[in-house]
Amino acid sequence: MSLKIETIHELLGYEHLKIAQNPEMFCFSLDSILLADFIRTKPSTKQIIDLGCGNAPIPLFLSLKTKAKIVGVEIQEKVYELGMKSVELNGLEGQIKLLNADIKDVYRLTGANVFDIAVSNPPYFKLNPGSNINKNKYLTIARHEVKINLEQIVTEAKKLLKNGGSFNLVHRTERLSETFAVLKQNNFGIRRLRFVYPKKENPALLFLLEAWSNKKDDVKVEAPLYVYENGEYSEEVLEIFNFKKNEYNK
Amino acid sequence: MSLKIETIHELLGYEHLKIAQNPEMFCFSLDSILLADFIRTKPSTKQIIDLGCGNAPIPLFLSLKTKAKIVGVEIQEKVYELGMKSVELNGLEGQIKLLNADIKDVYRLTGANVFDIAVSNPPYFKLNPGSNINKNKYLTIARHEVKINLEQIVTEAKKLLKNGGSFNLVHRTERLSETFAVLKQNNFGIRRLRFVYPKKENPALLFLLEAWSNKKDDVKVEAPLYVYENGEYSEEVLEIFNFKKNEYNK
Repeated sequence: MSLKIETIHELLGYEHLKIAQNPEMFCFSLDSILLADFIRTKPSTKQIIDLGCGNAPIPLFLSLKTKAKIVGVEIQEKVYELGMKSVELNGLEGQIKLLNADIKDVYRLTGANVFDIAVSNPPYFKLNPGSNINKNKYLTIARHEVKINLEQIVTEAKKLLKNGGSFNLVHRTERLSETFAVLKQNNFGIRRLRFVYPKKENPALLFLLEAWSNKKDDVKVEAPLYVYENGEYSEEVLEIFNFKKNEYNK
Repeated sequence: MSLKIETIHELLGYEHLKIAQNPEMFCFSLDSILLADFIRTKPSTKQIIDLGCGNAPIPLFLSLKTKAKIVGVEIQEKVYELGMKSVELNGLEGQIKLLNADIKDVYRLTGANVFDIAVSNPPYFKLNPGSNINKNKYLTIARHEVKINLEQIVTEAKKLLKNGGSFNLVHRTERLSETFAVLKQNNFGIRRLRFVYPKKENPALLFLLEAWSNKKDDVKVEAPLYVYENGEYSEEVLEIFNFKKNEYNK
């Protein structure tokens, strides 16, 4: 597989933010941006970790709304290199630190109980004998639970977060009840849920979730997020993208 | 407390369906109607049970869409009597049977593993030392977990349902993760979820849920249900109520 078709894009409508992509290998997804938008940083937020950061769209996006230090962990070296290039392109080496490491036991590198916020856009699909595995190795690892599964990610997030720290996840709705069970096992309290609907009439495909370490459940289900309205991106998604409707329609 | 102010109302816009109410004691809620609407009956549905049926709005509403036999269980005698009056007023004695009984162990009266569908609009609030208990005894029992709690209702539903039977619940969103845990303990698989939002911009207050006995989770999150739009009942709610918009606006 050629790795030469690497390209540099603007991160959505943020002209000053660039991201290195390789369409044959790895491009960031809408889901990552919706998750980054969902995360609530506070002035007191000092340390954030992104578990499975890909080419670093979430750290890049988060740099727009927080001064906190952001660590991104990516197991695939070539994907990590794309992320490194993005961080350098934007001169964000002072804020974003990427680690080419396995999420499992990354706490040995970063320290345990040090992060205010952990975030993950994990592989969505279980690895079953009949799995429709992507022939592309990079996409397979990003999308299927080859290297790590949801339970392991939650367990690692638990180790990494401070007491009361916030774990933020995007996942497919069919994994919702399993997610609740795994969070409960790890003594997370579920605090916010937001469902992402492709269109108003259709079922939700994804959920965004915030859970707090060692806190009680107190679930708030936020207003639905619609991706498309009348065949175009919804106003809310365009705002997240920082695309003005008129420009987008040009 | 006077029980004399009993009144007979139409069940929403269904002119031929009457319901006996007593505003000092017990009136059916919007939630019950949304839950009844959410339930999917099939031609093969033979037996339905409503756990905590109040004055029987759910059995009455369900009689509009199924020929199945419907059992309603209500522990409060005076409330049960309102339900009986409603059933008689509508000549539905052949389809709806109400039991003035405790949900706990009602399977001894009805038989175990006999129902295709179980439904419950349960007491929403936990009984804590600081609970804001209604002074009205009838409302207290309907709204607070005085006589029965969620876990007990799920356990009884499990006993009552056939293998693969459908359990349908409405509850407050802050009890969502607890509901998932209790269903899992009882080997229910969660199949459908629908969140009820008072308005588009606000968080959801309620969820509607269907779980299948002894099946795997396969959660589908349906389109949101908005109760109000532009300060009026939404089109969907008016349709459920069988109120035509124009008539309602008169």
